[in-house]
Amino acid sequence: MSEIIEKFEPLFNPRSITFIGASASPEKWGSIILSHIITGGFRGKVYPINPREKEILGLRTYPDVEALPEPPDLAIFVIPSSQIPSVLEDCARKGIKAGIVITAGFAEVGAEGEKLQQEIVRIARESGMILVGPNCFGIISRPCSLSTTMPPLYPKQGPFAILSQSGNVAVTIAHKLIDKDFGISRLISYGNEADLHCEDYLEYLAEDTETKVILSYVEGFKDGRKFFEIAKKVTRRKPIVMLKVGYTAAGARAARSHTSALAGSDTTFDAACKQTGIIRARSVDEMSDIGVALLNQPLPKGKRVGILTAGGGLGVLAADACAYAGLNVAHLPEDTIGELNALLPPWWNHDNPVDLAAGAFGTDAVKAIEALLRCHSIDGMILLNLIVALPINIGVLFRDDLASGSVPQEKLRAFEDGMGQLFDQLMALVTKYDKPIIIATELESENIDVKAKKMAGQKGLAYYTQPDRAALVFSRLAQYAEYLRNLSPCSPSAP
Amino acid sequence: MSEIIEKFEPLFNPRSITFIGASASPEKWGSIILSHIITGGFRGKVYPINPREKEILGLRTYPDVEALPEPPDLAIFVIPSSQIPSVLEDCARKGIKAGIVITAGFAEVGAEGEKLQQEIVRIARESGMILVGPNCFGIISRPCSLSTTMPPLYPKQGPFAILSQSGNVAVTIAHKLIDKDFGISRLISYGNEADLHCEDYLEYLAEDTETKVILSYVEGFKDGRKFFEIAKKVTRRKPIVMLKVGYTAAGARAARSHTSALAGSDTTFDAACKQTGIIRARSVDEMSDIGVALLNQPLPKGKRVGILTAGGGLGVLAADACAYAGLNVAHLPEDTIGELNALLPPWWNHDNPVDLAAGAFGTDAVKAIEALLRCHSIDGMILLNLIVALPINIGVLFRDDLASGSVPQEKLRAFEDGMGQLFDQLMALVTKYDKPIIIATELESENIDVKAKKMAGQKGLAYYTQPDRAALVFSRLAQYAEYLRNLSPCSPSAP
Repeated sequence: MSEIIEKFEPLFNPRSITFIGASASPEKWGSIILSHIITGGFRGKVYPINPREKEILGLRTYPDVEALPEPPDLAIFVIPSSQIPSVLEDCARKGIKAGIVITAGFAEVGAEGEKLQQEIVRIARESGMILVGPNCFGIISRPCSLSTTMPPLYPKQGPFAILSQSGNVAVTIAHKLIDKDFGISRLISYGNEADLHCEDYLEYLAEDTETKVILSYVEGFKDGRKFFEIAKKVTRRKPIVMLKVGYTAAGARAARSHTSALAGSDTTFDAACKQTGIIRARSVDEMSDIGVALLNQPLPKGKRVGILTAGGGLGVLAADACAYAGLNVAHLPEDTIGELNALLPPWWNHDNPVDLAAGAFGTDAVKAIEALLRCHSIDGMILLNLIVALPINIGVLFRDDLASGSVPQEKLRAFEDGMGQLFDQLMALVTKYDKPIIIATELESENIDVKAKKMAGQKGLAYYTQPDRAALVFSRLAQYAEYLRNLSPCSPSAP
Repeated sequence: MSEIIEKFEPLFNPRSITFIGASASPEKWGSIILSHIITGGFRGKVYPINPREKEILGLRTYPDVEALPEPPDLAIFVIPSSQIPSVLEDCARKGIKAGIVITAGFAEVGAEGEKLQQEIVRIARESGMILVGPNCFGIISRPCSLSTTMPPLYPKQGPFAILSQSGNVAVTIAHKLIDKDFGISRLISYGNEADLHCEDYLEYLAEDTETKVILSYVEGFKDGRKFFEIAKKVTRRKPIVMLKVGYTAAGARAARSHTSALAGSDTTFDAACKQTGIIRARSVDEMSDIGVALLNQPLPKGKRVGILTAGGGLGVLAADACAYAGLNVAHLPEDTIGELNALLPPWWNHDNPVDLAAGAFGTDAVKAIEALLRCHSIDGMILLNLIVALPINIGVLFRDDLASGSVPQEKLRAFEDGMGQLFDQLMALVTKYDKPIIIATELESENIDVKAKKMAGQKGLAYYTQPDRAALVFSRLAQYAEYLRNLSPCSPSAP
């Protein structure tokens, strides 16, 4: 076990925890959060601390930390901020190695809080304890089924780590992933980052074998230089997608009153991202959408994108969005045009975007996709209006059932089977040509979109509804690929 | 009936139509589109033309236009482009007043097609016939239940008109509205706009009493000067939200091969929008989201926005997005701070965004919303994390049911009832203070989001999931309001 993994073991893999501030009143956070730890199915012992109750939520309580039968690995604090220093001293004496301070009322509220915050950092550091927070939701660690978040959140285990200064934003990111049926390895809401900083967690996540992609929300840095030094090492091993706020004066003011963060210059941050391979996102939606594509799609070897559409307008939207995002809507070479001539009706537009022009369906549409992927002038594809490539009779879809709002079950099944087959074909092409396919399509209703999106994700495809989103995602993948290509080949961990 | 309404009567309110190119083969467009006209429940007579069949889809066919028992109001063409001129001559002789040419293969394919297109315009104009298309999906006119689109689309009647150069984009916009449970007055896919131009439809929609908001997708203008002259008159009466593509070289190239459109300079277009009150959107999602807010929310009287959040991170995201969109995240005056002090816990942040900081729920949260709306330094609100303002026991939600993925029916009903009550309260506040409330919230799952979004729309609220979308919508409303305020007061139709 590496030094960094060992340091974080009591936090992310505790054998036992003590919950300081357990409450018997169901409307109090001291009851709600404890109930989430229990419902989440934490795989270790839980010792609630409460001087008045004998039992809370079916667990035996203890009057104080001193009274615990063993030193637990992790202490979670939900008591008022002013009481934390003395209890933290008790924890240190007991030999507890990690703490999560969920309570707010520290540096974010002014000078008094700042003093209190310095005090808890001093106590923790003197005793060799690591501290998450204060002013946070704490963590989720799926391998040991630990969830300390304020809203209930028990995602399945998966490849995404969420590292967020804000608890609510962390939960919002998690919901985006859960809705697409993806799992989470670790979620960290670190709030004021008094002891452990953003870059400490990042160092851990780089070595964490459960984590493949890191999604990070940041309001400000305690030590920007150190953060970027570490980030530069991490992005060689796994991608970091970052949403950094405070890029306007109003946002910076809000960040300061939220987690006492100093947002800093946005231009400097942007330059630092480019130099360290961090992929920047501008919203939570963008972040999760980029993350999903990074997981299973190969990185494009250049910025030349092929667009296949059924319907010219969507093609125009996509061409604009691609060029706007810095991609090259490449002209097609003669041999590719020739291949497409054999598949498409004579009136097709002979250019990229390739418009099937209501004249190629099913197998022919898939063959056109393959012709584009095979093309040496194309580094990857954006695929619009997927419905025409389904390997089932188009009549099943282009008729009255979907429009009438009630699709008979057997047709829905045929549709889903067809969709599944198509996704398998597409992923086989992705693997064969080692080029990404980014889908931007809308089906006949939002509910069917949700279903198709989940299925696509399970098969490894990146699936969105809007052409501009697909273009943005493709461009971020291309930028990250370019960054990795330009890394010094002498570097030991360069790919 | 005004001259313009009368001119378009045979197109949007035909008593009878002839369908030229009816087919008995279910996979042909001549069968598919005809079936959509029938399924859509068109409230007039339909005369299919086919020289070989006696009956198609249960309708008696006629060998040619000449043989029809009466001159129908509208002719729909699905025959090959080369055959259209002669049949159009027949239609003119028969006294038909309007035509829709769905067939492609005109100016968008080159010089030959351009000649053919000039020919059909000449025939139409000489006979006083109006022509939609060619190279389009045709129209939907809900008051007479006419749908000529290639995919099946029978939206309910409602206040949105969709005016789109692309058929597929028109359908995509329609789906966005249908998913939010909104209705459509007219949908026009006008393709190559050979005879009738974009501005002609716009003139009609301005006078159309069924239409309250116009959503328009444009690839290029035939007569930009005339278009903007008309648009300037229209925006005084009802808003136009426009998505104009071809703003990059790649997009302009794609537009030319799609509908032979010349995209023109984007800077010029942008300036013209500002001068004529057109609200510009950058994607289909943006367009429908702005449209929905225009429908029922009052226009803000300035750019000062109040943000209410439960969770600081979402507040920071919103503050950044508002400032970025040109809005002013106003400081709060002392009296508003005082009102909020009485409602919120002592540790609240005393600034805008107002963070309820996990300390005010239900009625108190709604009172805080009212305090902000009443504030003289605020022109409207963005409301984040709505869940805390629900008038039901927060325990119903913040517990394990939603997280476990299966919500008992009675809890779901309680949740929906609570949501409905809250939406009513919010709309009452909007009316009382004549200031908009824009919601950006995510609930516990995508399915519940979809439900809440529909319910909010039915109550007249503008409901989104992302703070940046809410900020963008608010800013577009504020820009339109500013444009209307700055109109010369001498102008007879100024508001």
